[in-house]
Amino acid sequence: MYLRCLRKLQTEGVERISSNAMAQRFHLSSSQIRKDLAAFGEFGIRGVGYEVDALANHLRELMGLDRTHGVVVVGVGNLGTALSRFPGLQRDTFRVVGLFDTDPAKVGSEVAGHVVRPTEELADVVAETGARLGILAVPAPAAQASYDLLADAGVTAVLNFAPAQIKERAGTSVRSIDIRVVLEELAHRSIALDVPPTI
Amino acid sequence: MYLRCLRKLQTEGVERISSNAMAQRFHLSSSQIRKDLAAFGEFGIRGVGYEVDALANHLRELMGLDRTHGVVVVGVGNLGTALSRFPGLQRDTFRVVGLFDTDPAKVGSEVAGHVVRPTEELADVVAETGARLGILAVPAPAAQASYDLLADAGVTAVLNFAPAQIKERAGTSVRSIDIRVVLEELAHRSIALDVPPTI
Repeated sequence: MYLRCLRKLQTEGVERISSNAMAQRFHLSSSQIRKDLAAFGEFGIRGVGYEVDALANHLRELMGLDRTHGVVVVGVGNLGTALSRFPGLQRDTFRVVGLFDTDPAKVGSEVAGHVVRPTEELADVVAETGARLGILAVPAPAAQASYDLLADAGVTAVLNFAPAQIKERAGTSVRSIDIRVVLEELAHRSIALDVPPTI
Repeated sequence: MYLRCLRKLQTEGVERISSNAMAQRFHLSSSQIRKDLAAFGEFGIRGVGYEVDALANHLRELMGLDRTHGVVVVGVGNLGTALSRFPGLQRDTFRVVGLFDTDPAKVGSEVAGHVVRPTEELADVVAETGARLGILAVPAPAAQASYDLLADAGVTAVLNFAPAQIKERAGTSVRSIDIRVVLEELAHRSIALDVPPTI
């Protein structure tokens, strides 16, 4: 969260910011900010504030974002294709190293500069590339089996877009983005704007 | 959140549940559950618990999920196409009513049963259909202008997938899903699993 705030400040050209100003900007408590950031090291200078670039770089290092993370994508339908072509997944921090599908019509085709491989080759690619991140863009019924495949291969964190409940295994965490749930929250908000609350 | 918990119970065939059992299942406080759910009406029966179906239906109504919400999608690239074909957006609760793009090569083509229209027709379609939800699946540089178009047309809630900061206007809330930020959190988690913390 701090990194996101600092990035916003960077895009605005802010070089230094006090904990009070940061608190106001991002609706946080200034004492909490000072406490949290002190845990990372000596970044605040009394009366001057924080150096935005230095602090952002330090947080990036702490989060391991100064390394390259190999990503494998399972499911090369529209969503998997969209994600594979995503500019943020072709860069130094995140780099797609393999695309996989079970559909023989897709295997062998080229997407985002990668040849789509059969899921049988997933474990080998993960072993060769050291990829630790996986993206699941498969239909709901295939989600668990695909997750298990990633977990077996040694992937430690999975981003799941299938609207399915994944049974998580030790060592391979899952973060699911369920578009339906997000839309439900949005729908509720749009109604709240339309109709004055009665409760 | 309660609706999500109740749905999970429904898929497991649970018909009744006590606040204590619900608290244990979902890592909540039972007194908070009783307080929250009491605000919606008289659903809990002392010594019996909550009727899962009745409570879920009531929450669905409260959230406006018993109505049909028209959704317009701006940007019909891979991501927009994937979202438009998403089964959850062809149903009674959420229904795609229009796809829009600025690319003349895409306008006029058919995607997910809809003819892609030029963005100039967005306001008319929103007026005709009463759609209040919009999905932004455009490249980052086009995000703000597309959001403004949706806001001008009367859309009240926007789900944004472009990795861009949207300047929100009164009456049209935005929820952004930034894949990069999600991946950064995942990367950090995968490192935390790999390397023992040193702090």
